[in-house]
Amino acid sequence: RRGKMAKSTQLIDNEVFRAYATYTAIVLLKMMLMSLITAYFRMTRKAFANPEDTATFGKGESAKKYLRTDQDVERVRRGHLNDLENIVPFVGIGLLYALSGPELSAALLHFRIFTGARILHTFAYLIPLPQPGRGLSWAAGYLVTFSMAYKVLKAAWLL
Amino acid sequence: RRGKMAKSTQLIDNEVFRAYATYTAIVLLKMMLMSLITAYFRMTRKAFANPEDTATFGKGESAKKYLRTDQDVERVRRGHLNDLENIVPFVGIGLLYALSGPELSAALLHFRIFTGARILHTFAYLIPLPQPGRGLSWAAGYLVTFSMAYKVLKAAWLL
Amino acid sequence: RRGKMAKSTQLIDNEVFRAYATYTAIVLLKMMLMSLITAYFRMTRKAFANPEDTATFGKGESAKKYLRTDQDVERVRRGHLNDLENIVPFVGIGLLYALSGPELSAALLHFRIFTGARILHTFAYLIPLPQPGRGLSWAAGYLVTFSMAYKVLKAAWLL
Repeated sequence: RRGKMAKSTQLIDNEVFRAYATYTAIVLLKMMLMSLITAYFRMTRKAFANPEDTATFGKGESAKKYLRTDQDVERVRRGHLNDLENIVPFVGIGLLYALSGPELSAALLHFRIFTGARILHTFAYLIPLPQPGRGLSWAAGYLVTFSMAYKVLKAAWLL
Repeated sequence: RRGKMAKSTQLIDNEVFRAYATYTAIVLLKMMLMSLITAYFRMTRKAFANPEDTATFGKGESAKKYLRTDQDVERVRRGHLNDLENIVPFVGIGLLYALSGPELSAALLHFRIFTGARILHTFAYLIPLPQPGRGLSWAAGYLVTFSMAYKVLKAAWLL
Repeated sequence: RRGKMAKSTQLIDNEVFRAYATYTAIVLLKMMLMSLITAYFRMTRKAFANPEDTATFGKGESAKKYLRTDQDVERVRRGHLNDLENIVPFVGIGLLYALSGPELSAALLHFRIFTGARILHTFAYLIPLPQPGRGLSWAAGYLVTFSMAYKVLKAAWLL
């Protein structure tokens, strides 16, 4: 049993896989941070989605007015959903790409641009920066994922 | 070819990986269940998002009134989106954690708390339970994922 | 180091894994396409979510009227969210299924039905096709994922 375990956990000794693990953990933690930012804005703006969340503000009508949408909360939520839409493909395609045997330097280039682009995208969304700041950071991450998908399909193609 | 296949499917013989596979399948099936619950509430509350979904209720104005939001439907949808936001990081970071060679007992502890927390979170959202029930179950899953991310970064760090 | 790398990137030589990689890349690219379709409808319908996105249409009130929801944009966004809700379980459970050692023919059957069903689902949503077109294509993908989850749990079960 031990022998098998050692063999199957070897992936973590592969440098490309270690880079993938590092950058994937970073972008997923960044995405998780959006939940805390949403909670922060919900509490400071007093804007909640569920009646049970407003119970600490009293009962009945006095609490009901906090069941509302707030533009700062909605902005963070749009950023969070955009993360899901873009980070999910990165995590899935990036894993396949890391296993397809790329050069470490090429893999690092892809992972670094994607991670940098998504961090920039979050700042561009939350500050907010004037366009095309957010658009370009979104496009950079999109193109990196597309490039990895191309390499996966070239290496693995079996339809 | 056969030899290579046998080798590469060996992961499933690793006990930590088997535990990861079991708990990941369970939380993803739980998340998929939200689609059925949404469909159930859409049909019993007669609240739909697309005109073509209301065609069985007649044509024109008589069907149009079913194109509406319903608070029970929206509650399930918020629970579903919260699952996506939290289960995606668990699946991604959990895979890397399982491959980083943790003790089986430590891995089981992480996977069990996360899975239990997300099942509790769903009940807390749908019943609904008074706060901080839902908040605490959300935080438990969040902290478990954070703990796994820390261990992945410690084992794999290559920036 | 090189020896280890060669060993750990071997997964890509496994035919079932190659099929998984091919279909996963295809469905994730299809999901990514929804972002471009959303952007297309936002620009042709002039319906934006962020004030900074309307700056090219002038300042003040003249730009503010483009901060609105449009039913074509919302339709694409519902399709995109439905993709996330269904493709995330496929990618996660499909990976575990591919590693559980299925026959290539059985694996191809699962991956092909899922991918075909999600492409049909997108057409059914965007054209839109009358129901139960969209419902059936959704159910086909759902059942395939469920079938893979059953096989993963049977092969890996360790609670």
